[in-house]
Amino acid sequence: MKIGLLGLGTVGRAVVQALRENRDRIEARAGVPLEVARALVRRPELHRSEDVPVTTDVRAILDDPEIRIVVEVMGGFEPARTYILEALARGKAVVTANKEVLANAAEELLREAEQSRADLLFEASVGAGVPLIRGINMGLAANRVRRVLGILNGTTNFILTAMYQQGQSFAEALQAAKALGYAEADPTADIEGFDAARKIAILASIAFGAPVGERDVFREGISQVERVDVERGRQFGWRLKQRSQAREYAGRLDVRVTPVFLPEGHPLASVEGVYNAVMVEALPIGETMFYGPGAGGPSTASAVLSDVIEAARNIRVGGRAFTIDHYRVLPILPPDEVESAFYVRMVVADRPGVLAQVAGVFGAHGVSIEAVHQRPLEEGAELVLVTHPAKERAFFTARDELRDHPVVAELGTPIRIEGSHVP
Amino acid sequence: MKIGLLGLGTVGRAVVQALRENRDRIEARAGVPLEVARALVRRPELHRSEDVPVTTDVRAILDDPEIRIVVEVMGGFEPARTYILEALARGKAVVTANKEVLANAAEELLREAEQSRADLLFEASVGAGVPLIRGINMGLAANRVRRVLGILNGTTNFILTAMYQQGQSFAEALQAAKALGYAEADPTADIEGFDAARKIAILASIAFGAPVGERDVFREGISQVERVDVERGRQFGWRLKQRSQAREYAGRLDVRVTPVFLPEGHPLASVEGVYNAVMVEALPIGETMFYGPGAGGPSTASAVLSDVIEAARNIRVGGRAFTIDHYRVLPILPPDEVESAFYVRMVVADRPGVLAQVAGVFGAHGVSIEAVHQRPLEEGAELVLVTHPAKERAFFTARDELRDHPVVAELGTPIRIEGSHVP
Repeated sequence: MKIGLLGLGTVGRAVVQALRENRDRIEARAGVPLEVARALVRRPELHRSEDVPVTTDVRAILDDPEIRIVVEVMGGFEPARTYILEALARGKAVVTANKEVLANAAEELLREAEQSRADLLFEASVGAGVPLIRGINMGLAANRVRRVLGILNGTTNFILTAMYQQGQSFAEALQAAKALGYAEADPTADIEGFDAARKIAILASIAFGAPVGERDVFREGISQVERVDVERGRQFGWRLKQRSQAREYAGRLDVRVTPVFLPEGHPLASVEGVYNAVMVEALPIGETMFYGPGAGGPSTASAVLSDVIEAARNIRVGGRAFTIDHYRVLPILPPDEVESAFYVRMVVADRPGVLAQVAGVFGAHGVSIEAVHQRPLEEGAELVLVTHPAKERAFFTARDELRDHPVVAELGTPIRIEGSHVP
Repeated sequence: MKIGLLGLGTVGRAVVQALRENRDRIEARAGVPLEVARALVRRPELHRSEDVPVTTDVRAILDDPEIRIVVEVMGGFEPARTYILEALARGKAVVTANKEVLANAAEELLREAEQSRADLLFEASVGAGVPLIRGINMGLAANRVRRVLGILNGTTNFILTAMYQQGQSFAEALQAAKALGYAEADPTADIEGFDAARKIAILASIAFGAPVGERDVFREGISQVERVDVERGRQFGWRLKQRSQAREYAGRLDVRVTPVFLPEGHPLASVEGVYNAVMVEALPIGETMFYGPGAGGPSTASAVLSDVIEAARNIRVGGRAFTIDHYRVLPILPPDEVESAFYVRMVVADRPGVLAQVAGVFGAHGVSIEAVHQRPLEEGAELVLVTHPAKERAFFTARDELRDHPVVAELGTPIRIEGSHVP
């Protein structure tokens, strides 16, 4: 069975290599010999040493009726979206690793796949080779999902791990990530949460059976995280992580990517470096976790080829793969209606009555304080407040008032706390 | 689509309940309404309150052409094996949670399924609802697996967790497990590793694409584990766990269930109580882990129903599920040819030269010592030896010699050490 590759970069080459190295197993599973017939590239002169025929003309793939499976690993929104649509319209199965397309055009793509009775598979789009999509879509198909939470971006996890383990500042850790190739020259997509937002949108779509796109995700980056906050967290037994979460609240959905403190014992707290992990809370199963290398050519190739095997089997026997079934609509909950517990650090005047004043501002907005830690500074005092869960709107209204309060000299970025594990 | 249930115990009732509670999602996924038409029970008077028609006659299920899916949750080898074979022969899809049948008669069952072009699905047989079978079989289909290791038995993990956390003896922890219903009156299947052996045999079959049965598994129970060993392990930064493992060594397979020390930082070390976890080391993906509640009605029902959904889809559209593809034969490696690092504790005479004599016995068999910890006792001295990895045959030959050695007063059960993380 012939495969057309759109893109022959890191992932494309890893796919070709893994197919060559595990051919016996892969073809036994697919039930048919597989051949990469052609790869679309921009600059053929860079691919002379590759043993795959290359082309600069996408038509040589899309218009070739012998190519039954198109593997899109070129990335970016356009022209990838158009190529995927065209391939599906011609009845070809499409395997894609493209989270940008899926998080922004999934409905259109799924409709085309449905009309053409072609498979659209995208295991590689989230968590690379970790079988999250299959795990949730098929493995937990009989469950009602309550919450999906995970660490979905390796770059931010590398940065936060370095801040925790080596006491680096955000800027230092970002520099180290760039030097090691874990962060791009422009790291915005990672550190501001765009990458994770796309991934959690895709997972939420599957887990809740409802259409969720990138635009539905509430997003807060990690660039405001200060070394001192990581350190205070450690003293409380917490780890700071970029948490991606989708959660149903009585028929409404909250989907968000934010920094969050996790208690040390939390299964996600020990996910280090560039690993990804996803926990699913669902009924009847309870809590399940998937863990593994969430990026990189080899891991992504593993996912792409598992999809290729499934597509090939389906073409051969006439079945169709599980896909996102949008069987219901869940309105998005406004983010400030969600309840969260917060950590917030501030520098205040060091005189009697200040704590009462600060607590009074929170109290006036219905936010109650669970714990306070005060320590004298050379000038003033550091106050670390931990709140009970409260409506975010109420918390931020109080925070805004404190910003202008005469006793508050400095007000840090508040950080949410997972669960209500408070020291 | 009509379903026949064989068995209406804890799991059977959980299946009925989960199907009722998540009907919208399940039927959207299956693409067809699902109905439990009949359940086979032994004593109908016990099931009056159930809203499922019951029967004591298996023919009422096997001979009913309207029943397209048979769910076997009765357990035990026979008559379950015969019923499964008959159902498959009649072209019905079979979903089973029965590890005893699968670990001892998988080939016969798979052959029948192949001939009848019927699905045989068994996600629930290992790790209950944790989607291990799908994860390995489909999610990692394009990988060459090097090693599968896991914690697959909740009862032993509960016991070992209690010994570690509460300093209980094996007998005390077993008593506690019985009192809480985590261990059966006759706990042999759990504590001697039979249950885990069946599960790792099934996982090995899938992961390596080779037929592996219960009889191929080397097995050592946890009943010889002493409180003092758990304690010494803690001092070295190790956790004692029942590890189930399947590993390929140059074209031969070693499959085993034994107690083992894991370093604290190992992802499996923090799997507590009745949770299960499986790590897979494979190429190209690297290391992946699956984690969740490995037993219990609700978790098992989740797996059974995911299989039911898949079977129903396949019946509807004419596809067939992934199954074990035995595409190669891997001979079983004799267990004593495997290399392991060992921990062994002994009581020796407390006089100069004893350590040299003990080390000399190991040395004579080519087993080199990595670390020695000696501490004086009221009478004699305690010697804890940690070896470098060595052929198990060599280690045990040396151990047998030491047993009769005049300086050795007491010789504990040796415990294997995962990896070569040694203090």
